[in-house]
Amino acid sequence: MISISSPVEFYLQRLQKGLCSQLLEIDPKLHARKDLWERPEGGGGCSRVFSKGNVFESAGVNFSHVHGKSLPPSATKARPQLADKPFTAMGVSVVLHPINPYVPTTHMNVRFFTTREKGEANPVWWFGGGFDLTPYYGFHNDAYHWHLSAYHAVKPWGKELYPDFKKQCDEYFFLPHRNETRGIGGIFFDDYNKGGFDDAFALTQSVGNSFFPAYREIVERHNDDSWSEKEWEWQLYRRGRYVEFNLLYDRGTLFGLQSGGRTESILMSLPPLVRWEYDFQPVPNSPEDDLIKNYLKPRDWLNMPI
Amino acid sequence: MISISSPVEFYLQRLQKGLCSQLLEIDPKLHARKDLWERPEGGGGCSRVFSKGNVFESAGVNFSHVHGKSLPPSATKARPQLADKPFTAMGVSVVLHPINPYVPTTHMNVRFFTTREKGEANPVWWFGGGFDLTPYYGFHNDAYHWHLSAYHAVKPWGKELYPDFKKQCDEYFFLPHRNETRGIGGIFFDDYNKGGFDDAFALTQSVGNSFFPAYREIVERHNDDSWSEKEWEWQLYRRGRYVEFNLLYDRGTLFGLQSGGRTESILMSLPPLVRWEYDFQPVPNSPEDDLIKNYLKPRDWLNMPI
Repeated sequence: MISISSPVEFYLQRLQKGLCSQLLEIDPKLHARKDLWERPEGGGGCSRVFSKGNVFESAGVNFSHVHGKSLPPSATKARPQLADKPFTAMGVSVVLHPINPYVPTTHMNVRFFTTREKGEANPVWWFGGGFDLTPYYGFHNDAYHWHLSAYHAVKPWGKELYPDFKKQCDEYFFLPHRNETRGIGGIFFDDYNKGGFDDAFALTQSVGNSFFPAYREIVERHNDDSWSEKEWEWQLYRRGRYVEFNLLYDRGTLFGLQSGGRTESILMSLPPLVRWEYDFQPVPNSPEDDLIKNYLKPRDWLNMPI
Repeated sequence: MISISSPVEFYLQRLQKGLCSQLLEIDPKLHARKDLWERPEGGGGCSRVFSKGNVFESAGVNFSHVHGKSLPPSATKARPQLADKPFTAMGVSVVLHPINPYVPTTHMNVRFFTTREKGEANPVWWFGGGFDLTPYYGFHNDAYHWHLSAYHAVKPWGKELYPDFKKQCDEYFFLPHRNETRGIGGIFFDDYNKGGFDDAFALTQSVGNSFFPAYREIVERHNDDSWSEKEWEWQLYRRGRYVEFNLLYDRGTLFGLQSGGRTESILMSLPPLVRWEYDFQPVPNSPEDDLIKNYLKPRDWLNMPI
């Protein structure tokens, strides 16, 4: 097990470090905090949490490596026969909540699981990961850029991967009770072991490494856009959907809480300030209405007339 | 079925009306809104939603009466054999979010379910309900008053009911990932049909009718207490726990969303403004610390030295 886990762990720790440096590069005023923690049932992690910057209101870059005697059902939707088996899980998880309502919230995660079927000598392993974007205002060019970055990140491992992962992302980040996607999506993959360990690991690294440059470009496009209380209130309202998704449906959150993970590190994904308003309806044909009507549903961003 | 459902429906509609009048009596400035809605799968409801008053930031008093072909598993934890059976469910649900951080948030619900086991002529029915209090600052006298009201509400149907329902409340309104109760509890009962329909219905009415007078007394005690930004920030932070409970664990919320209920009416329970802060720790021995240490765990409020 050590032989395949070690390089993944090494990569994930380097990825966390690199992401934190890049974050502080574009927002040097961020207050930074680092917490090492251990999990009573086995393993632990390192949470790096940022707040009150000039660009980001809050941001978290988590590394965790946990093991346990019983894989929670939320971790193995595709392979229920593995539930309750001993497991190790490691990953890096990022959630960035910007201040400017014209800058989207974003999320990235890469993860690696190993487990063992009863009586089998070799471990079962798989990678998962992806990144997705949750804008408060819709910009076609941003959506195109974001999805093009996703396309290039996975293309070397097969042209069929982007459409497949894009579809999985749209399906995963979906709020059935609102009949809307969480944002404009991106890519999402799980239970991935295609082409053997080296190929699957390389693909996962490409996804992890492609995320921040793609997002940074969008931050730079919009961070100087001027905004007023109206846009801010809309941002707080839309953040409510983020909370609803994460607490009602997100398998990462539910896996973390079910597996006795560190609550503060898991819920660092929640936005710093949020509001709910009964039956709020944006003004028809406003930019807020445009977001809901034209951005919060699955669309083929790379093949749309601009 | 009509013969037992009709008086319950009549009571519930009267209860909703009475609660709205009492709410407007103590907070006449509340903006009031009334929405009648239908559920595509059958049934409907009436949502009465209030906002921006002098006492309450938001408040909701919902009536619903829905029926369907398949009872969701969240509705029948005690009787899994009834899952997927045709059902009717009706109830009144109240959540009040006050402005003053010294006034607690509160919740009350009474409900009535009917279903039918395969091949059985008579319907299976049960009542459920209860009320609980979520203070931001702990006051022993308030906890005593609240639980004494609960005790008196159910005492005519047996002295054993209050300790039983109080325990169920503490167990139900519990956040395992925080290892704390949602508030100081109250009473909670479910799957209740003891003594036959007339007795169970009378008990449920007593619970519904006792709620507002008990809460009103606490509002009047604290609504003039002065507060500053510090108390307000603590209130917003603690409201985050309310959101976490409702979206992660509350069977009423999950039942509503799973059974295709009206999303806006179900999520009207969420607070109007909420904040999360990574690893926030109150100052030791502060009133905020006192709440966590001495109020957010099950305690025998009626038998404690003052």
